[in-house]
Amino acid sequence: MSTIEDRLAEMGLTLPTPAAPVAAYTPVVVAGGMAYVSGQVSMKDGALIKGRLGEDMDIDAGMAAAQACGLMIVAQLKAALGSLERVEKIVKLGAFVACTPDFTDQPKVANGASELMQALFGDAGVHARSAVGVPALPLGVAVEIDAVVQLRAGGAAQRDA
Amino acid sequence: MSTIEDRLAEMGLTLPTPAAPVAAYTPVVVAGGMAYVSGQVSMKDGALIKGRLGEDMDIDAGMAAAQACGLMIVAQLKAALGSLERVEKIVKLGAFVACTPDFTDQPKVANGASELMQALFGDAGVHARSAVGVPALPLGVAVEIDAVVQLRAGGAAQRDA
Amino acid sequence: MSTIEDRLAEMGLTLPTPAAPVAAYTPVVVAGGMAYVSGQVSMKDGALIKGRLGEDMDIDAGMAAAQACGLMIVAQLKAALGSLERVEKIVKLGAFVACTPDFTDQPKVANGASELMQALFGDAGVHARSAVGVPALPLGVAVEIDAVVQLRAGGAAQRDA
Repeated sequence: MSTIEDRLAEMGLTLPTPAAPVAAYTPVVVAGGMAYVSGQVSMKDGALIKGRLGEDMDIDAGMAAAQACGLMIVAQLKAALGSLERVEKIVKLGAFVACTPDFTDQPKVANGASELMQALFGDAGVHARSAVGVPALPLGVAVEIDAVVQLRAGGAAQRDA
Repeated sequence: MSTIEDRLAEMGLTLPTPAAPVAAYTPVVVAGGMAYVSGQVSMKDGALIKGRLGEDMDIDAGMAAAQACGLMIVAQLKAALGSLERVEKIVKLGAFVACTPDFTDQPKVANGASELMQALFGDAGVHARSAVGVPALPLGVAVEIDAVVQLRAGGAAQRDA
Repeated sequence: MSTIEDRLAEMGLTLPTPAAPVAAYTPVVVAGGMAYVSGQVSMKDGALIKGRLGEDMDIDAGMAAAQACGLMIVAQLKAALGSLERVEKIVKLGAFVACTPDFTDQPKVANGASELMQALFGDAGVHARSAVGVPALPLGVAVEIDAVVQLRAGGAAQRDA
């Protein structure tokens, strides 16, 4: 078991089953030393976390939804890379929060994912980020987050070994 | 004529004239082995495809708008790179769908572009993606899509030859 | 004083104090020869520029808000890189404009940042861009813009010298 999965266990969290893409794309593309992770929608135990901040979901529930997106990003990375030890740095998260026009706490919501990355990957988990509100997300989910992740330079060699 | 343009012809599609940027930027920047393609708005035969999903446009029309964005991405790549054979991999599409707050089929709409990339580029066209709803897009268009595209390593050398 | 800061002065502009992240992330991550700049919210002289285009803010004010985001991106780059001379190319801006569903001039608004980059960095400031409308942004700001910036290849060596 990897160190990162040890930390997950200590936090009482488990990686979800990587969700199949909702449509005609793939969860992770590796190119130029980076893994580009498709927007992951909020879901837990196989069920979508639906809602709209400022309407039927409070900030704590929004943070939990964002954490679920973060867990799915990690699960997709593990499935695509084989091991989370290949992650050099979480570079960028792009967080989209379904909300009403008067909701302005997108950063607090997105922290659900950002704090997870920092807890799991330490300094390597501290990332750049954008967080914006949107009127609607796929399947009615509350949060969608995509990611750019730098891979260890030795990754390709390790795979060939 | 390139293989990709052969496939376009077989699909009954033609590349549009690359649209000039709406404003003070450029359609494609090549950096670090990647082509970053500006958000392309839905247009066909020089006319904007306007509308809002969930209001005055159905999913089929939305998919056609997304396909038009995809065609324009390909047209911009050809104009910037000289040849589509320089494309190694479609890495990431970022799809923005103008919609009402109760519209949740952004993935189906974005498939209009994703399926085009797969049809044209094969495995190299299978990409990571995010798809989100937005209340409004430039000039009232229905869909805007940007892209990150990996270039063949030999590209620079070929240009110097 | 660098050339770029000379140009800022000639334009009557000064770099703002780099804003602390609103939440659990970092303003700039350097990876793979690129600087990824977190979404910068519109603020001037330490005060947020709030508003919604199409409602309580006109295009000129929106452009000024976008310019303020651009200045903050430059300020964050300087703080993270030490010198703006390490910037090789402004690669991509992602502009999010808080607006009503009937507002369609996101490109004009985003030009506030795009024209700044071109004025400061010349050809190296001409970038790819997406610009979309959103219903709400963090803290009620009018504009948020993130960036991908290519660094000079000699940057690491210069830092080691």
